[in-house]
Amino acid sequence: MSSTEKPAHARARFRDGLVTPTAGWCDGYTQANLITVPRDLAWDFLLFAQRNPQPCPVLDVLDAGAVAGPLLDGDVRTDIPLYRVYLDGELAAETTDVREWWRDDLVSFLIGCSFTFERALGAAGVPVRHVEQGVNVPMYRTSRRCRSAGAVSGPLVVSMRPVPAALVDTAVAVTAAYPAVHGAPVHVGDPSELGITDLDTPDYGDAVRPEPGDVPVFWACGVTPQAAVVESRPPLAIAHAPGHMLITDARDEDYRLTV
Amino acid sequence: MSSTEKPAHARARFRDGLVTPTAGWCDGYTQANLITVPRDLAWDFLLFAQRNPQPCPVLDVLDAGAVAGPLLDGDVRTDIPLYRVYLDGELAAETTDVREWWRDDLVSFLIGCSFTFERALGAAGVPVRHVEQGVNVPMYRTSRRCRSAGAVSGPLVVSMRPVPAALVDTAVAVTAAYPAVHGAPVHVGDPSELGITDLDTPDYGDAVRPEPGDVPVFWACGVTPQAAVVESRPPLAIAHAPGHMLITDARDEDYRLTV
Repeated sequence: MSSTEKPAHARARFRDGLVTPTAGWCDGYTQANLITVPRDLAWDFLLFAQRNPQPCPVLDVLDAGAVAGPLLDGDVRTDIPLYRVYLDGELAAETTDVREWWRDDLVSFLIGCSFTFERALGAAGVPVRHVEQGVNVPMYRTSRRCRSAGAVSGPLVVSMRPVPAALVDTAVAVTAAYPAVHGAPVHVGDPSELGITDLDTPDYGDAVRPEPGDVPVFWACGVTPQAAVVESRPPLAIAHAPGHMLITDARDEDYRLTV
Repeated sequence: MSSTEKPAHARARFRDGLVTPTAGWCDGYTQANLITVPRDLAWDFLLFAQRNPQPCPVLDVLDAGAVAGPLLDGDVRTDIPLYRVYLDGELAAETTDVREWWRDDLVSFLIGCSFTFERALGAAGVPVRHVEQGVNVPMYRTSRRCRSAGAVSGPLVVSMRPVPAALVDTAVAVTAAYPAVHGAPVHVGDPSELGITDLDTPDYGDAVRPEPGDVPVFWACGVTPQAAVVESRPPLAIAHAPGHMLITDARDEDYRLTV
Protein backbone atom coordinates (compact mmCIF):
# COMPACT_ATOMS: atom_id res chain seq x y z
CA MET A 1 0.00 0.00 0.00
CA SER A 2 1.18 3.47 -0.85
CA SER A 3 -1.36 5.96 0.39
CA THR A 4 0.55 9.11 -0.57
CA GLU A 5 1.56 8.00 -4.06
CA LYS A 6 0.38 9.95 -7.10
CA PRO A 7 -1.88 8.04 -9.51
CA ALA A 8 0.46 8.34 -12.51
CA HIS A 9 3.31 6.87 -10.46
CA ALA A 10 1.14 4.06 -9.11
CA ARG A 11 -0.07 3.24 -12.63
CA ALA A 12 3.53 3.13 -13.83
CA ARG A 13 4.37 0.60 -11.13
CA PHE A 14 1.39 -1.54 -12.12
CA ARG A 15 2.40 -1.21 -15.77
CA ASP A 16 5.82 -2.51 -14.73
CA GLY A 17 4.21 -5.61 -13.25
CA LEU A 18 3.36 -4.92 -9.60
CA VAL A 19 0.28 -6.94 -8.64
CA THR A 20 -1.68 -5.80 -5.58
CA PRO A 21 -5.18 -4.89 -4.48
CA THR A 22 -5.47 -1.12 -4.51
CA ALA A 23 -7.48 -0.38 -1.36
CA GLY A 24 -5.61 2.30 0.57
CA TRP A 25 -3.57 3.44 -2.44
CA CYS A 26 -3.29 7.06 -3.56
CA ASP A 27 -5.37 8.77 -0.89
CA GLY A 28 -7.74 11.32 -2.31
CA TYR A 29 -7.89 9.87 -5.81
CA THR A 30 -10.86 8.08 -7.32
CA GLN A 31 -10.58 4.39 -8.06
CA ALA A 32 -12.59 2.76 -10.84
CA ASN A 33 -13.83 -0.60 -12.02
CA LEU A 34 -13.20 -1.49 -15.64
CA ILE A 35 -15.52 -3.37 -17.95
CA THR A 36 -14.63 -3.52 -21.62
CA VAL A 37 -16.85 -5.10 -24.27
CA PRO A 38 -17.14 -5.05 -28.07
CA ARG A 39 -18.94 -2.07 -29.55
CA ASP A 40 -21.96 -4.09 -30.65
CA LEU A 41 -22.64 -5.06 -27.02
CA ALA A 42 -21.81 -1.65 -25.57
CA TRP A 43 -25.38 -0.34 -25.84
CA ASP A 44 -26.73 -3.17 -23.71
CA PHE A 45 -23.96 -2.69 -21.15
CA LEU A 46 -24.44 1.08 -20.95
CA LEU A 47 -28.18 0.60 -20.58
CA PHE A 48 -27.58 -2.05 -17.91
CA ALA A 49 -25.41 0.44 -16.03
CA GLN A 50 -27.97 3.21 -16.48
CA ARG A 51 -30.70 0.96 -15.10
CA ASN A 52 -28.59 -0.16 -12.14
CA PRO A 53 -26.87 3.03 -11.03
CA GLN A 54 -26.06 1.90 -7.51
CA PRO A 55 -23.82 -1.04 -8.51
CA CYS A 56 -22.86 0.47 -11.88
CA PRO A 57 -22.32 4.24 -11.52
CA VAL A 58 -20.64 5.22 -14.78
CA LEU A 59 -17.78 7.67 -14.28
CA ASP A 60 -16.82 7.68 -17.96
CA VAL A 61 -17.12 5.74 -21.19
CA LEU A 62 -14.18 5.73 -23.57
CA ASP A 63 -14.74 5.91 -27.31
CA ALA A 64 -14.44 2.60 -29.18
CA GLY A 65 -10.79 1.58 -29.31
CA ALA A 66 -9.67 4.36 -26.96
CA VAL A 67 -7.28 3.38 -24.14
CA ALA A 68 -7.25 6.72 -22.28
CA GLY A 69 -9.65 9.52 -21.50
CA PRO A 70 -10.29 12.56 -19.33
CA LEU A 71 -10.05 10.51 -16.13
CA LEU A 72 -6.69 8.96 -16.92
CA ASP A 73 -3.60 9.99 -18.75
CA GLY A 74 -2.40 6.45 -19.32
CA ASP A 75 -3.45 3.16 -20.87
CA VAL A 76 -6.35 1.08 -19.57
CA ARG A 77 -4.73 -2.03 -21.12
CA THR A 78 -1.67 -1.96 -18.88
CA ASP A 79 -2.22 0.42 -15.96
CA ILE A 80 -4.34 -1.84 -13.76
CA PRO A 81 -2.46 -4.26 -11.48
CA LEU A 82 -4.39 -7.33 -12.62
CA TYR A 83 -7.03 -8.05 -15.27
CA ARG A 84 -9.55 -10.75 -15.98
CA VAL A 85 -10.34 -11.73 -19.56
CA TYR A 86 -13.62 -13.51 -20.21
CA LEU A 87 -14.44 -15.48 -23.37
CA ASP A 88 -18.10 -16.45 -23.73
CA GLY A 89 -18.55 -15.66 -20.06
CA GLU A 90 -15.76 -18.01 -18.91
CA LEU A 91 -12.67 -16.70 -17.18
CA ALA A 92 -9.99 -17.29 -19.83
CA ALA A 93 -7.02 -15.44 -18.36
CA GLU A 94 -5.84 -13.45 -15.37
CA THR A 95 -3.05 -11.21 -16.56
CA THR A 96 -1.22 -7.92 -15.93
CA ASP A 97 -1.45 -6.75 -19.55
CA VAL A 98 -4.37 -7.14 -21.96
CA ARG A 99 -2.81 -5.65 -25.07
CA GLU A 100 -2.80 -9.03 -26.81
CA TRP A 101 -6.59 -9.20 -26.41
CA TRP A 102 -7.22 -5.64 -27.54
CA ARG A 103 -9.39 -4.79 -30.55
CA ASP A 104 -10.25 -1.45 -32.08
CA ASP A 105 -13.96 -2.03 -31.49
CA LEU A 106 -13.64 -2.39 -27.71
CA VAL A 107 -15.53 0.10 -25.54
CA SER A 108 -14.33 0.63 -21.96
CA PHE A 109 -16.59 1.66 -19.10
CA LEU A 110 -15.11 3.16 -15.95
CA ILE A 111 -17.42 2.42 -13.05
CA GLY A 112 -17.21 3.99 -9.61
CA CYS A 113 -15.54 2.01 -6.80
CA SER A 114 -16.26 2.11 -3.10
CA PHE A 115 -12.52 2.29 -2.30
CA THR A 116 -13.04 5.95 -3.21
CA PHE A 117 -14.95 6.69 0.00
CA GLU A 118 -12.73 4.69 2.34
CA ARG A 119 -10.56 7.68 3.14
CA ALA A 120 -13.72 9.59 4.12
CA LEU A 121 -14.78 6.66 6.30
CA GLY A 122 -11.43 6.69 8.03
CA ALA A 123 -11.55 10.45 8.48
CA ALA A 124 -14.94 10.04 10.17
CA GLY A 125 -13.47 7.51 12.58
CA VAL A 126 -14.89 4.40 10.92
CA PRO A 127 -12.22 1.66 10.80
CA VAL A 128 -11.73 -0.04 7.43
CA ARG A 129 -10.95 -3.62 8.45
CA HIS A 130 -9.60 -4.98 5.16
CA VAL A 131 -7.12 -2.10 4.96
CA GLU A 132 -6.12 -2.64 8.61
CA GLN A 133 -5.64 -6.34 7.90
CA GLY A 134 -3.87 -5.80 4.57
CA VAL A 135 -6.23 -7.96 2.57
CA ASN A 136 -8.56 -7.42 -0.38
CA VAL A 137 -12.15 -6.39 0.38
CA PRO A 138 -14.57 -9.35 0.41
CA MET A 139 -17.24 -9.34 -2.31
CA TYR A 140 -20.29 -11.56 -2.74
CA ARG A 141 -22.82 -12.38 -5.42
CA THR A 142 -26.28 -11.84 -3.94
CA SER A 143 -29.75 -13.20 -4.57
CA ARG A 144 -30.90 -9.74 -5.70
CA ARG A 145 -31.34 -9.38 -9.44
CA CYS A 146 -30.28 -6.34 -11.38
CA ARG A 147 -32.69 -4.81 -13.85
CA SER A 148 -31.69 -6.37 -17.17
CA ALA A 149 -30.99 -4.59 -20.46
CA GLY A 150 -31.21 -6.46 -23.75
CA ALA A 151 -28.80 -9.38 -23.59
CA VAL A 152 -27.28 -8.30 -20.28
CA SER A 153 -28.57 -9.60 -16.96
CA GLY A 154 -27.12 -10.70 -13.67
CA PRO A 155 -27.14 -10.53 -9.90
CA LEU A 156 -26.16 -7.64 -7.67
CA VAL A 157 -22.62 -8.03 -6.29
CA VAL A 158 -21.78 -6.35 -2.98
CA SER A 159 -18.67 -5.53 -1.02
CA MET A 160 -18.73 -5.99 2.76
CA ARG A 161 -17.06 -3.99 5.51
CA PRO A 162 -17.45 -4.91 9.18
CA VAL A 163 -18.34 -1.71 11.04
CA PRO A 164 -18.61 -1.20 14.82
CA ALA A 165 -22.34 -1.12 15.59
CA ALA A 166 -22.16 2.36 17.08
CA LEU A 167 -20.57 3.71 13.88
CA VAL A 168 -22.98 2.22 11.34
CA ASP A 169 -24.99 5.46 11.20
CA THR A 170 -21.81 7.38 10.51
CA ALA A 171 -20.78 4.95 7.78
CA VAL A 172 -24.19 5.32 6.14
CA ALA A 173 -24.09 9.11 6.30
CA VAL A 174 -20.52 9.39 5.02
CA THR A 175 -21.01 7.07 2.06
CA ALA A 176 -24.47 8.43 1.11
CA ALA A 177 -22.64 11.58 0.04
CA TYR A 178 -20.82 9.59 -2.67
CA PRO A 179 -23.57 8.28 -4.98
CA ALA A 180 -21.15 8.11 -7.92
CA VAL A 181 -19.08 5.51 -6.09
CA HIS A 182 -22.01 3.34 -4.87
CA GLY A 183 -23.33 5.68 -2.17
CA ALA A 184 -25.08 4.39 0.94
CA PRO A 185 -25.10 0.70 1.86
CA VAL A 186 -27.69 -1.58 0.25
CA HIS A 187 -27.99 -3.60 3.45
CA VAL A 188 -26.84 -3.64 7.06
CA GLY A 189 -26.81 -6.73 9.21
CA ASP A 190 -28.09 -10.15 8.17
CA PRO A 191 -26.14 -11.59 5.19
CA SER A 192 -28.92 -14.12 4.52
CA GLU A 193 -31.19 -11.23 3.50
CA LEU A 194 -28.91 -10.94 0.46
CA GLY A 195 -28.69 -14.71 -0.04
CA ILE A 196 -25.14 -14.81 1.35
CA THR A 197 -24.65 -18.02 3.32
CA ASP A 198 -21.07 -17.67 4.55
CA LEU A 199 -19.18 -14.41 4.99
CA ASP A 200 -15.93 -16.38 5.32
CA THR A 201 -16.06 -17.56 1.72
CA PRO A 202 -16.45 -14.48 -0.47
CA ASP A 203 -16.99 -14.93 -4.19
CA TYR A 204 -14.28 -12.36 -4.89
CA GLY A 205 -11.50 -10.91 -2.74
CA ASP A 206 -10.50 -12.10 0.71
CA ALA A 207 -12.36 -12.95 3.89
CA VAL A 208 -11.98 -10.19 6.46
CA ARG A 209 -11.93 -10.72 10.23
CA PRO A 210 -14.57 -8.70 12.10
CA GLU A 211 -13.69 -7.25 15.48
CA PRO A 212 -16.02 -7.87 18.44
CA GLY A 213 -19.11 -5.68 18.11
CA ASP A 214 -18.73 -5.23 14.34
CA VAL A 215 -21.79 -5.48 12.11
CA PRO A 216 -21.49 -6.49 8.44
CA VAL A 217 -22.36 -3.58 6.13
CA PHE A 218 -22.90 -4.21 2.42
CA TRP A 219 -22.36 -1.76 -0.41
CA ALA A 220 -23.23 -2.26 -4.08
CA CYS A 221 -20.08 -3.26 -5.96
CA GLY A 222 -18.64 -2.53 -9.39
CA VAL A 223 -17.88 -6.21 -9.90
CA THR A 224 -21.58 -6.50 -10.75
CA PRO A 225 -20.85 -6.09 -14.51
CA GLN A 226 -18.45 -9.05 -14.30
CA ALA A 227 -21.19 -11.21 -12.79
CA ALA A 228 -23.37 -10.05 -15.70
CA VAL A 229 -20.61 -11.07 -18.14
CA VAL A 230 -20.55 -14.56 -16.62
CA GLU A 231 -24.32 -14.84 -16.97
CA SER A 232 -24.70 -13.10 -20.33
CA ARG A 233 -21.70 -14.71 -22.03
CA PRO A 234 -20.47 -12.06 -24.48
CA PRO A 235 -17.75 -13.40 -26.82
CA LEU A 236 -15.13 -11.16 -25.18
CA ALA A 237 -15.02 -9.00 -22.08
CA ILE A 238 -12.06 -7.50 -20.25
CA ALA A 239 -12.26 -6.35 -16.63
CA HIS A 240 -10.04 -5.56 -13.70
CA ALA A 241 -9.45 -8.39 -11.24
CA PRO A 242 -11.77 -7.64 -8.30
CA GLY A 243 -10.10 -5.29 -5.82
CA HIS A 244 -7.33 -4.45 -8.30
CA MET A 245 -8.65 -1.15 -9.55
CA LEU A 246 -7.83 1.53 -12.05
CA ILE A 247 -6.53 4.52 -10.08
CA THR A 248 -7.71 7.62 -11.92
CA ASP A 249 -6.55 11.22 -11.90
CA ALA A 250 -9.96 12.37 -10.57
CA ARG A 251 -10.26 13.45 -6.96
CA ASP A 252 -12.52 11.85 -4.37
CA GLU A 253 -14.06 15.24 -3.62
CA ASP A 254 -15.21 15.53 -7.23
CA TYR A 255 -17.70 12.79 -6.42
CA ARG A 256 -18.78 14.01 -2.99
CA LEU A 257 -22.10 15.80 -2.88
CA THR A 258 -22.56 18.64 -0.44
CA VAL A 259 -26.25 19.41 -0.15
CA MET B 1 -52.65 24.43 -14.19
CA SER B 2 -53.86 21.62 -11.99
CA SER B 3 -51.47 21.20 -9.12
CA THR B 4 -53.40 18.47 -7.29
CA GLU B 5 -54.15 16.33 -10.31
CA LYS B 6 -52.85 12.75 -10.52
CA PRO B 7 -50.37 12.07 -13.36
CA ALA B 8 -52.54 9.42 -15.06
CA HIS B 9 -55.46 11.84 -15.17
CA ALA B 10 -53.31 14.68 -16.49
CA ARG B 11 -51.85 12.41 -19.16
CA ALA B 12 -55.38 11.38 -20.20
CA ARG B 13 -56.30 15.06 -20.65
CA PHE B 14 -53.20 15.65 -22.77
CA ARG B 15 -53.99 12.50 -24.75
CA ASP B 16 -57.42 13.99 -25.38
CA GLY B 17 -55.83 17.08 -26.86
CA LEU B 18 -55.23 19.62 -24.08
CA VAL B 19 -52.15 21.71 -24.93
CA THR B 20 -50.43 23.53 -22.06
CA PRO B 21 -47.02 23.97 -20.46
CA THR B 22 -46.84 21.67 -17.45
CA ALA B 23 -45.05 23.82 -14.84
CA GLY B 24 -47.15 23.68 -11.68
CA TRP B 25 -48.99 20.53 -12.70
CA CYS B 26 -49.31 17.45 -10.48
CA ASP B 27 -47.46 18.63 -7.38
CA GLY B 28 -45.08 16.02 -6.06
CA TYR B 29 -44.65 14.11 -9.31
CA THR B 30 -41.54 14.07 -11.46
CA GLN B 31 -41.67 15.70 -14.87
CA ALA B 32 -39.45 14.52 -17.72
CA ASN B 33 -38.03 15.65 -21.03
CA LEU B 34 -38.41 13.26 -23.95
CA ILE B 35 -35.89 12.62 -26.68
CA THR B 36 -36.56 9.75 -29.06
CA VAL B 37 -34.12 8.66 -31.79
CA PRO B 38 -33.61 5.62 -34.00
CA ARG B 39 -31.80 2.70 -32.41
CA ASP B 40 -28.66 3.13 -34.50
CA LEU B 41 -28.18 6.63 -33.05
CA ALA B 42 -29.18 5.72 -29.50
CA TRP B 43 -25.65 4.84 -28.43
CA ASP B 44 -24.35 8.29 -29.31
CA PHE B 45 -27.28 9.95 -27.56
CA LEU B 46 -26.95 7.85 -24.41
CA LEU B 47 -23.22 8.54 -24.34
CA PHE B 48 -23.90 12.25 -24.88
CA ALA B 49 -26.27 12.18 -21.90
CA GLN B 50 -23.74 10.24 -19.82
CA ARG B 51 -21.05 12.79 -20.62
CA ASN B 52 -23.30 15.76 -19.85
CA PRO B 53 -25.18 14.66 -16.75
CA GLN B 54 -26.18 18.13 -15.59
CA PRO B 55 -28.27 19.03 -18.67
CA CYS B 56 -29.07 15.40 -19.54
CA PRO B 57 -29.73 13.41 -16.35
CA VAL B 58 -31.23 10.15 -17.63
CA LEU B 59 -34.18 8.98 -15.55
CA ASP B 60 -34.92 6.02 -17.79
CA VAL B 61 -34.36 4.61 -21.27
CA LEU B 62 -37.16 2.62 -22.89
CA ASP B 63 -36.37 -0.44 -24.95
CA ALA B 64 -36.46 0.04 -28.74
CA GLY B 65 -40.07 0.44 -29.84
CA ALA B 66 -41.42 0.59 -26.29
CA VAL B 67 -43.93 3.35 -25.50
CA ALA B 68 -44.20 2.84 -21.74
CA GLY B 69 -41.91 1.85 -18.89
CA PRO B 70 -41.49 1.78 -15.12
CA LEU B 71 -41.88 5.56 -14.85
CA LEU B 72 -45.12 5.76 -16.76
CA ASP B 73 -48.13 3.55 -17.21
CA GLY B 74 -49.19 5.20 -20.46
CA ASP B 75 -47.96 5.98 -23.95
CA VAL B 76 -45.07 8.37 -24.67
CA ARG B 77 -46.51 8.94 -28.16
CA THR B 78 -49.70 10.61 -26.96
CA ASP B 79 -49.41 11.52 -23.27
CA ILE B 80 -47.36 14.70 -23.63
CA PRO B 81 -49.30 17.92 -24.32
CA LEU B 82 -47.21 18.90 -27.33
CA TYR B 83 -44.41 17.32 -29.33
CA ARG B 84 -41.77 18.44 -31.76
CA VAL B 85 -40.73 16.22 -34.65
CA TYR B 86 -37.35 16.86 -36.25
CA LEU B 87 -36.29 15.55 -39.66
CA ASP B 88 -32.59 15.98 -40.45
CA GLY B 89 -32.39 18.45 -37.59
CA GLU B 90 -35.17 20.67 -38.93
CA LEU B 91 -38.41 21.17 -37.03
CA ALA B 92 -40.90 19.33 -39.26
CA ALA B 93 -44.01 19.29 -37.08
CA GLU B 94 -45.41 20.44 -33.78
CA THR B 95 -48.21 18.05 -32.87
CA THR B 96 -50.15 16.52 -29.98
CA ASP B 97 -49.74 12.93 -31.19
CA VAL B 98 -46.67 11.33 -32.77
CA ARG B 99 -48.08 7.90 -33.54
CA GLU B 100 -47.90 8.55 -37.27
CA TRP B 101 -44.12 9.09 -36.95
CA TRP B 102 -43.53 6.07 -34.75
CA ARG B 103 -41.19 3.23 -35.73
CA ASP B 104 -40.33 0.03 -33.93
CA ASP B 105 -36.66 0.97 -33.83
CA LEU B 106 -37.20 4.19 -31.88
CA VAL B 107 -35.51 4.48 -28.47
CA SER B 108 -36.94 6.98 -25.97
CA PHE B 109 -34.91 8.71 -23.30
CA LEU B 110 -36.62 10.27 -20.31
CA ILE B 111 -34.46 13.13 -19.02
CA GLY B 112 -34.96 14.92 -15.70
CA CYS B 113 -36.73 18.30 -15.72
CA SER B 114 -36.25 21.22 -13.37
CA PHE B 115 -40.02 21.62 -12.99
CA THR B 116 -39.57 18.72 -10.58
CA PHE B 117 -37.88 20.90 -7.96
CA GLU B 118 -40.19 23.90 -8.29
CA ARG B 119 -42.51 22.69 -5.56
CA ALA B 120 -39.48 22.42 -3.26
CA LEU B 121 -38.45 25.96 -4.22
CA GLY B 122 -41.93 27.22 -3.36
CA ALA B 123 -41.94 25.31 -0.08
CA ALA B 124 -38.65 27.01 0.81
CA GLY B 125 -40.18 30.41 0.15
CA VAL B 126 -38.57 31.00 -3.24
CA PRO B 127 -41.15 32.45 -5.66
CA VAL B 128 -41.36 30.77 -9.07
CA ARG B 129 -42.11 33.71 -11.38
CA HIS B 130 -43.20 31.85 -14.51
CA VAL B 131 -45.74 29.88 -12.49
CA GLU B 132 -46.96 33.09 -10.79
CA GLN B 133 -47.28 34.74 -14.20
CA GLY B 134 -48.88 31.70 -15.86
CA VAL B 135 -46.30 31.47 -18.63
CA ASN B 136 -43.82 28.87 -19.83
CA VAL B 137 -40.32 28.97 -18.33
CA PRO B 138 -37.82 30.85 -20.53
CA MET B 139 -34.99 28.76 -21.99
CA TYR B 140 -31.84 29.85 -23.81
CA ARG B 141 -29.13 28.30 -25.93
CA THR B 142 -25.79 29.23 -24.40
CA SER B 143 -22.24 29.67 -25.64
CA ARG B 144 -21.13 26.73 -23.48
CA ARG B 145 -20.46 23.54 -25.42
CA CYS B 146 -21.48 20.12 -24.22
CA ARG B 147 -18.96 17.31 -24.35
CA SER B 148 -19.71 15.57 -27.64
CA ALA B 149 -20.26 11.86 -28.25
CA GLY B 150 -19.80 10.35 -31.68
CA ALA B 151 -22.12 12.17 -34.07
CA VAL B 152 -23.87 14.11 -31.31
CA SER B 153 -22.74 17.58 -30.28
CA GLY B 154 -24.36 20.82 -29.27
CA PRO B 155 -24.60 23.74 -26.88
CA LEU B 156 -25.79 23.75 -23.29
CA VAL B 157 -29.39 24.97 -22.99
CA VAL B 158 -30.50 26.57 -19.73
CA SER B 159 -33.76 27.54 -18.09
CA MET B 160 -33.91 30.83 -16.18
CA ARG B 161 -35.81 31.79 -13.05
CA PRO B 162 -35.62 35.28 -11.58
CA VAL B 163 -34.96 34.88 -7.84
CA PRO B 164 -34.95 37.60 -5.16
CA ALA B 165 -31.28 38.29 -4.38
CA ALA B 166 -31.67 37.38 -0.73
CA LEU B 167 -33.06 33.97 -1.67
CA VAL B 168 -30.46 32.90 -4.23
CA ASP B 169 -28.55 30.92 -1.61
CA THR B 170 -31.75 29.11 -0.69
CA ALA B 171 -32.52 28.35 -4.33
CA VAL B 172 -29.02 26.93 -4.80
CA ALA B 173 -29.24 24.78 -1.68
CA VAL B 174 -32.73 23.47 -2.44
CA THR B 175 -31.98 22.51 -6.03
CA ALA B 176 -28.53 21.05 -5.32
CA ALA B 177 -30.38 18.25 -3.56
CA TYR B 178 -31.95 17.22 -6.88
CA PRO B 179 -29.01 16.25 -9.12
CA ALA B 180 -31.25 13.92 -11.18
CA VAL B 181 -33.35 16.87 -12.29
CA HIS B 182 -30.44 19.25 -13.11
CA GLY B 183 -29.37 20.05 -9.55
CA ALA B 184 -27.78 23.35 -8.59
CA PRO B 185 -27.70 26.32 -11.00
CA VAL B 186 -24.95 26.48 -13.61
CA HIS B 187 -24.78 30.26 -13.29
CA VAL B 188 -26.16 33.13 -11.23
CA GLY B 189 -26.27 36.70 -12.42
CA ASP B 190 -24.81 37.95 -15.69
CA PRO B 191 -26.51 36.40 -18.76
CA SER B 192 -23.62 37.46 -20.99
CA GLU B 193 -21.39 35.00 -19.16
CA LEU B 194 -23.47 32.32 -20.89
CA GLY B 195 -23.55 34.17 -24.21
CA ILE B 196 -27.16 35.23 -23.68
CA THR B 197 -27.70 38.71 -25.10
CA ASP B 198 -31.34 39.39 -24.29
CA LEU B 199 -33.36 37.71 -21.54
CA ASP B 200 -36.57 39.04 -23.10
CA THR B 201 -36.18 36.89 -26.20
CA PRO B 202 -35.73 33.30 -25.03
CA ASP B 203 -34.94 30.61 -27.59
CA TYR B 204 -37.68 28.42 -26.13
CA GLY B 205 -40.65 29.16 -23.86
CA ASP B 206 -41.82 32.61 -22.80
CA ALA B 207 -40.14 35.72 -21.44
CA VAL B 208 -40.76 36.11 -17.73
CA ARG B 209 -41.03 39.44 -15.91
CA PRO B 210 -38.57 39.81 -13.01
CA GLU B 211 -39.72 41.59 -9.88
CA PRO B 212 -37.55 44.42 -8.47
CA GLY B 213 -34.52 42.91 -6.73
CA ASP B 214 -34.67 39.65 -8.66
CA VAL B 215 -31.46 38.11 -10.00
CA PRO B 216 -31.50 35.77 -13.02
CA VAL B 217 -30.58 32.22 -12.03
CA PHE B 218 -29.78 29.65 -14.72
CA TRP B 219 -30.22 25.90 -14.50
CA ALA B 220 -29.10 23.28 -17.03
CA CYS B 221 -32.11 22.29 -19.14
CA GLY B 222 -33.35 19.06 -20.70
CA VAL B 223 -33.96 20.84 -23.99
CA THR B 224 -30.19 20.45 -24.50
CA PRO B 225 -30.71 17.17 -26.47
CA GLN B 226 -33.02 19.05 -28.87
CA ALA B 227 -30.33 21.64 -29.51
CA ALA B 228 -28.01 18.69 -30.20
CA VAL B 229 -30.57 17.28 -32.64
CA VAL B 230 -30.63 20.57 -34.52
CA GLU B 231 -26.84 20.59 -34.71
CA SER B 232 -26.29 16.87 -35.33
CA ARG B 233 -29.15 16.39 -37.81
CA PRO B 234 -30.31 12.80 -37.24
CA PRO B 235 -32.83 11.65 -39.88
CA LEU B 236 -35.61 11.51 -37.27
CA ALA B 237 -35.98 12.70 -33.68
CA ILE B 238 -39.08 13.17 -31.57
CA ALA B 239 -39.15 15.36 -28.48
CA HIS B 240 -41.58 17.18 -26.22
CA ALA B 241 -42.21 20.82 -27.05
CA PRO B 242 -40.10 22.78 -24.54
CA GLY B 243 -42.00 23.28 -21.27
CA HIS B 244 -44.64 20.73 -22.27
CA MET B 245 -43.35 17.78 -20.30
CA LEU B 246 -44.08 14.15 -19.71
CA ILE B 247 -45.57 13.89 -16.22
CA THR B 248 -44.38 10.59 -14.78
CA ASP B 249 -45.66 8.41 -11.95
CA ALA B 250 -42.38 8.88 -10.04
CA ARG B 251 -42.33 11.12 -6.99
CA ASP B 252 -40.20 14.22 -6.59
CA GLU B 253 -38.82 12.84 -3.34
CA ASP B 254 -37.44 9.82 -5.20
CA TYR B 255 -34.93 12.19 -6.75
CA ARG B 256 -34.11 14.23 -3.68
CA LEU B 257 -30.86 13.36 -1.98
CA THR B 258 -30.62 13.62 1.78
CA VAL B 259 -26.98 13.52 2.76
